[in-house]
Amino acid sequence: MVSEKMKPFLANNSAIRAMFEEGKRMAAIYGQENVYDFSLGNPNVPVPEVNDALMHVIQEDEFNVLHGYMSNAGYEDVRLTIAESINKKFGTTFSYKNLIMTVGAASGLNVILKSIINPGDEVIAFAPYFVEYNSYVRNYDGVMVVISPDTETFMPKLDEFEAKITSKTKAVIINSPNNPTGVVYSEEMLKELAAIMKRKEEEYGTSIVLLSDEPYRDLAYGGVEVPYVTKYYHNTVVCYSYSKSLSVPGERIGYLIIPDEVEDSALLISAATIANRVLGCVNAPSLMQKAIKYCIDNDISVDLEAYEKNRNLLYNALIEYGFSCAKPDGAFYLFVKSPVADEKEFCETAKKHRVLFVPGSSFACPGHVRIAYCVSYEQIERSLPAFRAIAMEYGLIK
Amino acid sequence: MVSEKMKPFLANNSAIRAMFEEGKRMAAIYGQENVYDFSLGNPNVPVPEVNDALMHVIQEDEFNVLHGYMSNAGYEDVRLTIAESINKKFGTTFSYKNLIMTVGAASGLNVILKSIINPGDEVIAFAPYFVEYNSYVRNYDGVMVVISPDTETFMPKLDEFEAKITSKTKAVIINSPNNPTGVVYSEEMLKELAAIMKRKEEEYGTSIVLLSDEPYRDLAYGGVEVPYVTKYYHNTVVCYSYSKSLSVPGERIGYLIIPDEVEDSALLISAATIANRVLGCVNAPSLMQKAIKYCIDNDISVDLEAYEKNRNLLYNALIEYGFSCAKPDGAFYLFVKSPVADEKEFCETAKKHRVLFVPGSSFACPGHVRIAYCVSYEQIERSLPAFRAIAMEYGLIK
Repeated sequence: MVSEKMKPFLANNSAIRAMFEEGKRMAAIYGQENVYDFSLGNPNVPVPEVNDALMHVIQEDEFNVLHGYMSNAGYEDVRLTIAESINKKFGTTFSYKNLIMTVGAASGLNVILKSIINPGDEVIAFAPYFVEYNSYVRNYDGVMVVISPDTETFMPKLDEFEAKITSKTKAVIINSPNNPTGVVYSEEMLKELAAIMKRKEEEYGTSIVLLSDEPYRDLAYGGVEVPYVTKYYHNTVVCYSYSKSLSVPGERIGYLIIPDEVEDSALLISAATIANRVLGCVNAPSLMQKAIKYCIDNDISVDLEAYEKNRNLLYNALIEYGFSCAKPDGAFYLFVKSPVADEKEFCETAKKHRVLFVPGSSFACPGHVRIAYCVSYEQIERSLPAFRAIAMEYGLIK
Repeated sequence: MVSEKMKPFLANNSAIRAMFEEGKRMAAIYGQENVYDFSLGNPNVPVPEVNDALMHVIQEDEFNVLHGYMSNAGYEDVRLTIAESINKKFGTTFSYKNLIMTVGAASGLNVILKSIINPGDEVIAFAPYFVEYNSYVRNYDGVMVVISPDTETFMPKLDEFEAKITSKTKAVIINSPNNPTGVVYSEEMLKELAAIMKRKEEEYGTSIVLLSDEPYRDLAYGGVEVPYVTKYYHNTVVCYSYSKSLSVPGERIGYLIIPDEVEDSALLISAATIANRVLGCVNAPSLMQKAIKYCIDNDISVDLEAYEKNRNLLYNALIEYGFSCAKPDGAFYLFVKSPVADEKEFCETAKKHRVLFVPGSSFACPGHVRIAYCVSYEQIERSLPAFRAIAMEYGLIK
């Protein structure tokens, strides 16, 4: 009954989701407050003003306009507002036509991959990375090519990158601030990356698209700047999501930006708009589109301080306990080196202490674990003795 | 830049959408009230209680639960409420596990097709049909097989159907009440259809899935009953959407039902849940899921009288003017025979009278046009002289 392409998924379902289910199971046994679940990137900081936005548009807008069909790319006024706010922040020159509203960034990635990938085309990602990319690429019979991780800095290994670009390379996915490491790519890094890609485009006479997956764009701490990727490379497509910046991952709202500088830009915008339709999304949820406009007009976004406080508390404690971890400048994850080679054993040990996190092999980077700190400050405080006990068990401290 | 699979789409974009754009263009020239646009199935009857539902859940539910991630199949309480309401209405025995909340029926169809279709598998549809099915099937390298229309009754031609089922037939799509004809399949018709499919499953030793695309299930008039398809055939999967029954097509909310009777049911439910995730939807919009539960708990649905009044006014007038049309029992379309063989010419003539509707060739049934009467009663009233003038131009009346 099940198609051949879906069968591998059944055998190998998301380890992150599995951990999430395990957390629910354990909470039922030991009580919610005695289980320290750091497995899922589900934002915990409410943004009550999003509700104000929703109430406002529900009360003000005409029913059939608010809940009806619009152009498959989304409401023009919403796209215009987003374009102008990006232009103002980053000095870009997007028009509303460069934007397509999507059912989150995951759908945006599917839409753009469907629009550009021919069977056998290669898509490059830098480990560690969000392994759902594998599924998205496989959906269009693309081939994933993975650049091995630099486990010191978690920055792209540029030599290996350059060597692995072939005439079949159609796209490169980057994700900064990064899930799972929290690192942010500098302007310099982006320039070097772009230079390599341009060189390879010329060498092979091909077009290589840089897909900038940006659900964490607005989650950077301590004044760290996240450079706007379209400024460094002509064939850049941005996949944004409001899931994290407005704490609404369930609502499925984001956008694609296909700048005019992209080769065949107008054609690609048309193709992506159609892909949005025929993949079955038709359009991004209409009420949320309008709410997003209100949020931008009224400068609404998540309070970053809460995440930054969490990061500081947990990061400093883990370092104190002898764990090793690259300091994350953004997102809401720590990517911690496992004290034993097999990080799944580390996860099992932690589970005995009722601490849940996700093995790095789920991000193509074994030997590490991802700890999501988008939880309450109190959960982190309560969990610290458990982390200390785990550190003691591995002899990191006495 | 654009993938080979997307190129045909660019050449041959939706005629319905093109007509919609034409309507906007003409309205700008002649004034909204002087253009009679019957091209798009965009519901015009507001359901203000949906806004009450939204306001209620926004005020009552915890922010991070309401807007956060849930299981990829959707909130359990929402699925339970829907399952119970269907069980009560139709005597079925679904549990919440049989339901997967989807980004509308279009996405539901994509999800189930991805879950079952191998390249080269055949999917049967009965003309006239919503031609986006072609795109959905092509997304998974399936092959569309079309049963020619019975232009008298617009019921499935069962002989041709039986003859065209092969060992490669994986799915059959039905859509009752039908877009574009408005006809409703009787219990008898479903039993005959099911008997043929069972016979063919046995003959070939295959599984053939009956996909019941049901966005118009709740739009039937004059006491006509729409039988529940899962009761007649074991391998039935239902694709439902609230777009029309709650007038919220922009919100993208619907569900799949995969009953226990379906072969490998549990596996297929898992596969579809994963497909929902990896196609990028992740889950159906969370706020709308909760609003749907509230709507069911409070018996909220669109006022059918408005559509029925529209149908009666327009149908009776067109018959009076000499047009020929099967009487529609549901949905909000009339499928009218073109007075000239080339119905596109008919559309062009109508356009001169500022009347817009869609050629039947967009539904694999040339020689007819689809007239969507989900418009204001006043628009229909105002348009009647134009329809009369068109009829006179073709000599249907004097």
